[in-house]
Amino acid sequence: MAKNVGILAMEVYFPPTCIQQEVLEAHDGASKGKYTIGLGQDCMAFCTEVEDVISMSMTAVTSLLEKYGVDPKEIGRLEVGSETVLDKSKSIKTFLMPIFEKCGNTDIEGVDSTNACYGGTAALFNCVNWVESSSWDGRYGLVVCTDSAVYAEGPARPTGGAAAIAMLIGPNAPISFESKLRASHMAHVYDFYKPDLASEYPVVDGKLSQTCYLMALDSCYKSFCDKYQKLEGKQFSVNDAEYFVFHSPYNKLVQKSFARLLFNDFLSSASSIDEAAKEKLSPFSSLTNEESYQSRDLEKATQQVAKPFYDVKVQPSTLIPKQVGNMYTASLYAAFASLLHNKNSTLAGQRVILFSYGSGLSATMFSLRFNEGKHPFSLSNIATVMNVSEKLKSRNEFPPEKFVEIMKLMEHRYGGKDFVTSKDCSLLAPGTYYLTEVDSKYRRFYAKKAVENGVVANGH
Amino acid sequence: MAKNVGILAMEVYFPPTCIQQEVLEAHDGASKGKYTIGLGQDCMAFCTEVEDVISMSMTAVTSLLEKYGVDPKEIGRLEVGSETVLDKSKSIKTFLMPIFEKCGNTDIEGVDSTNACYGGTAALFNCVNWVESSSWDGRYGLVVCTDSAVYAEGPARPTGGAAAIAMLIGPNAPISFESKLRASHMAHVYDFYKPDLASEYPVVDGKLSQTCYLMALDSCYKSFCDKYQKLEGKQFSVNDAEYFVFHSPYNKLVQKSFARLLFNDFLSSASSIDEAAKEKLSPFSSLTNEESYQSRDLEKATQQVAKPFYDVKVQPSTLIPKQVGNMYTASLYAAFASLLHNKNSTLAGQRVILFSYGSGLSATMFSLRFNEGKHPFSLSNIATVMNVSEKLKSRNEFPPEKFVEIMKLMEHRYGGKDFVTSKDCSLLAPGTYYLTEVDSKYRRFYAKKAVENGVVANGH
Repeated sequence: MAKNVGILAMEVYFPPTCIQQEVLEAHDGASKGKYTIGLGQDCMAFCTEVEDVISMSMTAVTSLLEKYGVDPKEIGRLEVGSETVLDKSKSIKTFLMPIFEKCGNTDIEGVDSTNACYGGTAALFNCVNWVESSSWDGRYGLVVCTDSAVYAEGPARPTGGAAAIAMLIGPNAPISFESKLRASHMAHVYDFYKPDLASEYPVVDGKLSQTCYLMALDSCYKSFCDKYQKLEGKQFSVNDAEYFVFHSPYNKLVQKSFARLLFNDFLSSASSIDEAAKEKLSPFSSLTNEESYQSRDLEKATQQVAKPFYDVKVQPSTLIPKQVGNMYTASLYAAFASLLHNKNSTLAGQRVILFSYGSGLSATMFSLRFNEGKHPFSLSNIATVMNVSEKLKSRNEFPPEKFVEIMKLMEHRYGGKDFVTSKDCSLLAPGTYYLTEVDSKYRRFYAKKAVENGVVANGH
Repeated sequence: MAKNVGILAMEVYFPPTCIQQEVLEAHDGASKGKYTIGLGQDCMAFCTEVEDVISMSMTAVTSLLEKYGVDPKEIGRLEVGSETVLDKSKSIKTFLMPIFEKCGNTDIEGVDSTNACYGGTAALFNCVNWVESSSWDGRYGLVVCTDSAVYAEGPARPTGGAAAIAMLIGPNAPISFESKLRASHMAHVYDFYKPDLASEYPVVDGKLSQTCYLMALDSCYKSFCDKYQKLEGKQFSVNDAEYFVFHSPYNKLVQKSFARLLFNDFLSSASSIDEAAKEKLSPFSSLTNEESYQSRDLEKATQQVAKPFYDVKVQPSTLIPKQVGNMYTASLYAAFASLLHNKNSTLAGQRVILFSYGSGLSATMFSLRFNEGKHPFSLSNIATVMNVSEKLKSRNEFPPEKFVEIMKLMEHRYGGKDFVTSKDCSLLAPGTYYLTEVDSKYRRFYAKKAVENGVVANGH
């Protein structure tokens, strides 16, 4: 069996078009700090009419292949996680096939995985399992998470975002799975869903969704700790991993989530809880589970206890989610990319725990191990290739009026046909794919912004 | 690594409501034989307002668990393949979770896989890979294929159908994968897709889709034969497998497809082609690939050559697809179930080749091996449990006027909210789940027809 299977390489793409949360806050007439402190968000990326989940994933995939020097023929599996539906039958994966077809490679397994923000994690697990299975043919797997999160005008709108992430999967990876340290919690709930098929916007019960997230987190953490105890013969606490990375709809929930792990450690008398922390949390030891999700005092106390741990173990993974917003399936991996960006080669030898959550609901907590790896598949090269600082720096901030206008146009265009876009790719980086047309049969056409002058059509 | 991983058990469910193709043909004013001989179809099942892809999958899953005596706690992975979208974010898998939640089992990986009719195959491969991977925890996998195929009034309508299939996955299976004998063909085409999000009906280019199917079949077969040659050191021909099972949108395409394999055998001078066959096919040896898909004469000649092989190697798998219609993701596995039904324990020691096709497109040809297995996971018990004859016999044939009326109601209801159904489950077998209500928040409610008297609500 292939050993140390995991992530060999990554590429991150988010639109260069964004709006500052502070600006949106003022425009919306929200109280000062509601989006920036209340949600904990700094900025939000969004697709203009020339970008969508297909173009973003094309950009991420071609960029990964080029920058790591991977021949498209070396890909044996390609899977996409997304909850942004542009077609209810044809997978996003098939839209990516021209990249491989032109090299004569059509023997590529995998389709799309779907359950809200969890689809990317399902795709990642599937790809890793394939490499470990008897049907593996020795080639690489490729996982793509791509989503555009948009909300109707109202309180949920500042929790949007957009991005695509591509990950190359194979053995002897610098980021490998500790495959026995994995716990899931799956249940039937209606916290966030998309039953209005004609609309891009979800139906959301924000309060329920937050409680579901925290309940799923508790369930996964308990089961994870049990499995760790059985495997390692000792109790797990947050001290046993250097980093924790969370699916991030908005940063405030990440803060609450990590604090919740400390509360779990307190309840199980784990080693991370010192005397001072014990004293702070004791008043809450008799709360029922349900009460504990509602108690503001508990939230405050746990966040105080968690703060020093948070700054070290969580904060390095919050950069892109705070700057780009909720990227649905890509959110967890954008957080993970932030950690690689901030800590890169210092991560070698360390463990990171990830928590993936998709409404509806599906959740998994799992563990990864870092080692420096070999160029081009090294931690430091991954950070170099992703070039996060430069991508964040070179964005264009839009005024709120323009943002609202674009949202209106996108709302109108969703599910539509028979239109051409402005084809204006002036704000896009060279090498970015963009939407040019949706014809009368709903067929979508894309072009690629050339690295030199001119435009390269992508041939379909 | 787990050995002989594959299908341990199966259950098939299709609605007991159907229409004879001969009757529909007359009602539609189509020429006599257009549906029955032209398409090769006998009968078509359809969901009435009390059934949908969720209720059908609940029925198939609970029935499988009960009839094979599998404790819901023994399931460690559950994956659904479907292209019938009732929600664009919340997976069908989450709707199945209450079956497991009530036993305290929420640690079940897997979500939905989507690409037209191929999603079930992707789910099956994912589940098998999981059992073979280092993250396997010793429990069973469960794969569900569920779809309702409906078309707008017009020539495609008789190619509808509906069914759900559940398959239990684990090691030492009576139906195991020959995992190195597998070849895929994936490409970006618009042969059949569902871009009109508000409508349940697809956009279809029937002629293109048939050509895409046959091209993908050729590509997979060539690659499959190459892999076989490398592995076994000898040339593959249709003689090297006892049975061939095809994704079946309508039976006529299955006939054409198998004949196409014989044409491939002829072009590669494989051992299945005798002198008489060689003579019949020689006039076509210089056709270009493109010409070969269009030539009626070739089609006729290959079908003549294929006929004796077809009767033995393919015909036993055509029962349910001809009687129930196109079941999208479930079609291939309903064909496979027909083979088990017709041949059950005589299959031990034999090989079957399956061809899965999903528009857009994704296609894979793969090989399975049979052995009798041990009760309850034996070929003969699978045939007994599925009870295909009885299920086909006890159906209710609807007159065309009633069928059209139901299609109109379903068209109106698709994507809708705030309605209750008739809750009339009189035609359903005991143990069948059915839809009772979709509330003002689009939440769906189901009940289960009791085995004795009365109705058991399923608790959500």
